[in-house]
Amino acid sequence: MNYKMVLSTLGKVLLIEALLLIFPMLVGVIYSDGTFLAFLIPVIGLLIVGAPLSLIKTKYKSIYAKEGFVIVALAWVILSLAGAVPFVISGQIPNFINAVFETVSGFTTTGASILESEDLLGLSKGMMFWRLFTHWIGGMGVLVFVLAVMPSNTSGAMHVFRAESPGPTVGKLVSKLRFTARILYGIYFVMTVSELIFLLFGGNSFYDSLLLSFTTAGTGGFGIKSDSVMGYNSYTQIVISIFMLLFSINFNVYYLILIGSVSKAFKSEELRVFIIIVVVATITVAINIFMSMRELYSTFGSALKHSFFQVTSISSTTGLASTNFDEWPAYSRCILLFLTVMGACGGSTGGGMKVSRMTILFKSATSDIKRLINPRSVVCTKFEGEVVDRETERNARAYFIFWTAIFLACTILLTIDSYGDLMSDFTATLACIGNVGPGLGVVGPMGSYAGYSGFSKILLSFVMLIGRLEIFPMLILFVPRTWRRG
Amino acid sequence: MNYKMVLSTLGKVLLIEALLLIFPMLVGVIYSDGTFLAFLIPVIGLLIVGAPLSLIKTKYKSIYAKEGFVIVALAWVILSLAGAVPFVISGQIPNFINAVFETVSGFTTTGASILESEDLLGLSKGMMFWRLFTHWIGGMGVLVFVLAVMPSNTSGAMHVFRAESPGPTVGKLVSKLRFTARILYGIYFVMTVSELIFLLFGGNSFYDSLLLSFTTAGTGGFGIKSDSVMGYNSYTQIVISIFMLLFSINFNVYYLILIGSVSKAFKSEELRVFIIIVVVATITVAINIFMSMRELYSTFGSALKHSFFQVTSISSTTGLASTNFDEWPAYSRCILLFLTVMGACGGSTGGGMKVSRMTILFKSATSDIKRLINPRSVVCTKFEGEVVDRETERNARAYFIFWTAIFLACTILLTIDSYGDLMSDFTATLACIGNVGPGLGVVGPMGSYAGYSGFSKILLSFVMLIGRLEIFPMLILFVPRTWRRG
Repeated sequence: MNYKMVLSTLGKVLLIEALLLIFPMLVGVIYSDGTFLAFLIPVIGLLIVGAPLSLIKTKYKSIYAKEGFVIVALAWVILSLAGAVPFVISGQIPNFINAVFETVSGFTTTGASILESEDLLGLSKGMMFWRLFTHWIGGMGVLVFVLAVMPSNTSGAMHVFRAESPGPTVGKLVSKLRFTARILYGIYFVMTVSELIFLLFGGNSFYDSLLLSFTTAGTGGFGIKSDSVMGYNSYTQIVISIFMLLFSINFNVYYLILIGSVSKAFKSEELRVFIIIVVVATITVAINIFMSMRELYSTFGSALKHSFFQVTSISSTTGLASTNFDEWPAYSRCILLFLTVMGACGGSTGGGMKVSRMTILFKSATSDIKRLINPRSVVCTKFEGEVVDRETERNARAYFIFWTAIFLACTILLTIDSYGDLMSDFTATLACIGNVGPGLGVVGPMGSYAGYSGFSKILLSFVMLIGRLEIFPMLILFVPRTWRRG
Repeated sequence: MNYKMVLSTLGKVLLIEALLLIFPMLVGVIYSDGTFLAFLIPVIGLLIVGAPLSLIKTKYKSIYAKEGFVIVALAWVILSLAGAVPFVISGQIPNFINAVFETVSGFTTTGASILESEDLLGLSKGMMFWRLFTHWIGGMGVLVFVLAVMPSNTSGAMHVFRAESPGPTVGKLVSKLRFTARILYGIYFVMTVSELIFLLFGGNSFYDSLLLSFTTAGTGGFGIKSDSVMGYNSYTQIVISIFMLLFSINFNVYYLILIGSVSKAFKSEELRVFIIIVVVATITVAINIFMSMRELYSTFGSALKHSFFQVTSISSTTGLASTNFDEWPAYSRCILLFLTVMGACGGSTGGGMKVSRMTILFKSATSDIKRLINPRSVVCTKFEGEVVDRETERNARAYFIFWTAIFLACTILLTIDSYGDLMSDFTATLACIGNVGPGLGVVGPMGSYAGYSGFSKILLSFVMLIGRLEIFPMLILFVPRTWRRG
């Protein structure tokens, strides 16, 4: 373990967070909501700790996969702990565990909240801005941002990039990693601004439009209001739906379109599978709710709008609600749970297991069946037109096994808490590991995570980080051989 | 595909079923319940079709893995279709789909029933005997029985044995496969008779004791009475608990004990993991129900008895109920669902994913994490003191992926049926693929599968077969290249 490199990179992350905290501080100043100090104190603290760390020099600049994972895992834990401080100092979320849960939920773009209706009304403008800004920061990743803005001559920065970026395979867009990171942030920024403009056209205030753009772009799901986005007009809801869908597509597709390879972009196998699933889910759910809930959805158009909204919201792992889907019939809720598990495309800001990983898993299992029928035949798994290499296949399978083990263990531990019923505990785990946010029952779109015990909240925070960082970085922290020198 | 060998083996299976149907026919005669013809007609039919098929001669006696899977899959489908006929002819289960569901549930030792309280009272002694006898037949497997009793000079009979026997690895006990099959049936028979004697000691009638022994030995779960075994005395319940536990252990352990290798028997890694899980589950569930349901379980002893009964019942995938566990608190129900997924040991009569397969999956994923940390290191997965070969590991992973895909697809299809709520549909699928029987809600221990549509019943029958035969044999029927000549 190259400890010096780890510490120096973590130092940079702290400096970046200090910088980012200035934005909500300014918002607080503009609205003079009295939260200036609540932001200033952590900013100073982060500078004092971060600056010397970032200056640590080391002879050996090279790092390996192991260091990449450790840096990313620790960075996200520290970011969340420090990010919770303003909530506590301001007294708006006085309990530290609650504040950490909310911040982890923000950075991991989960959107699960411990704030109930009356607590939301108590949040000042600056604090609400910070809460939703964490979604935007977490969506693309902090270390990708570090790579984009800071000069670095580390060989092996690719390991950091790979550990933080979602999906079973991660590729550079251009040969220089720093430019890849900048292109990704560029696309992210332009798309966020586009949504902002569309929302402003719908008659929403600048503040609301900006925050809704943050929550959509990061596929987060924190609402500004206690009824999520149920109160906004249809135009606003449809704009949000479309952008949730756009943000859950692999950003490589946009890069290909930008450089003119439009036909190559639309040949993406992952994109096709994803679109088919979204279309089938939207139509069947719309029929299901229209047939059985005629009193709520009087026209098929209204059923289709809410179906499209919820399908894009859950498959993008945003988790915003245009209607109380916890009351939907069994089929529709089951489809939403399936989408919670599946999630978005790799290389997007969305979470979940990723369409590409599920496709690879299914195709590789099919290859195994063929091998079983004819042991002498040579069978290989293809994805996106290329043979899937053994490492990718192995990692996808290990991911899936650990995902299941963590899911089971977390659900069992949650049931000890006497807060939720079995369905709530079960879907709370799914919604947290998939970074979706709302589940069913007490954690449904009208509920909150407030009633869970401190232990359960810490557990779920951990699970959200596991979900966002795709398991391995967090698990590796607990393997003793990670910490060996050399 | 060696069609002649497949047909000739299927012919033998039909003859065996004709033979087996004579037992319930005799029971019917003894109790003169008027079901003689309902059994005689299928017996004659099976003889007419089976005899010529079994006499088909072929030059090429050798078969491969593919033929083994196909024989086993088709044999189980045909057995179930023919086994349903007596129920229909006698008019005791007039609907053919219902009768097939009940027979599949019997042979696969699931124990999910479409019979409601009043239907159970309407079953004659002979028909009830047949219903529970299918559990006993299915427990050890029909083709294993064919191998044990019929002369065969087929090279490759091992493929048939492997395809029908549960667990990720299947070994012969002795060099001759026929003797292995006979030893297994010998142990099975002796253990069943032992239970019968213990149950007779408890003051139960011979008929009840025999049928309870069938349902326990096959880890089936059909009850003779509508309240499962809630009405029997504590002695009887405890005897059943202990035998459910014994029948869910790998029969290799008993063979090792028989030949005097007691210490080797108890070194079994699978056995240890299984016992630890059963003990931890029993104690924590007992505490959980004792703490929160004091009005029902007034002493800790009574809580412990019911906890031990349900834990052994579900982990052995029997599914009998000593109490209505659907009313238990979330933790206890969650543990029971986990046990439904896990199931028993490989090489037992129990179902589920098998303890050995789950252990191998978890260990191989852990090896992958180690490879990820240090790509140059050589890591191998060990189980039962030996390195797990690549094929076993690959098959276990493919099994797990298909298990999940089938589970998801079946749950979604069930939700279209408006019978169950989401939790019922979800646990119905789990209980059928795990061959447990009861789930929660409408398919809970006091409920039944009667209300599902015909489509759902066919689907669940298919899923029970998939669970019993461990996925591949049933899936392979749908792969076109299976049916190629050569």
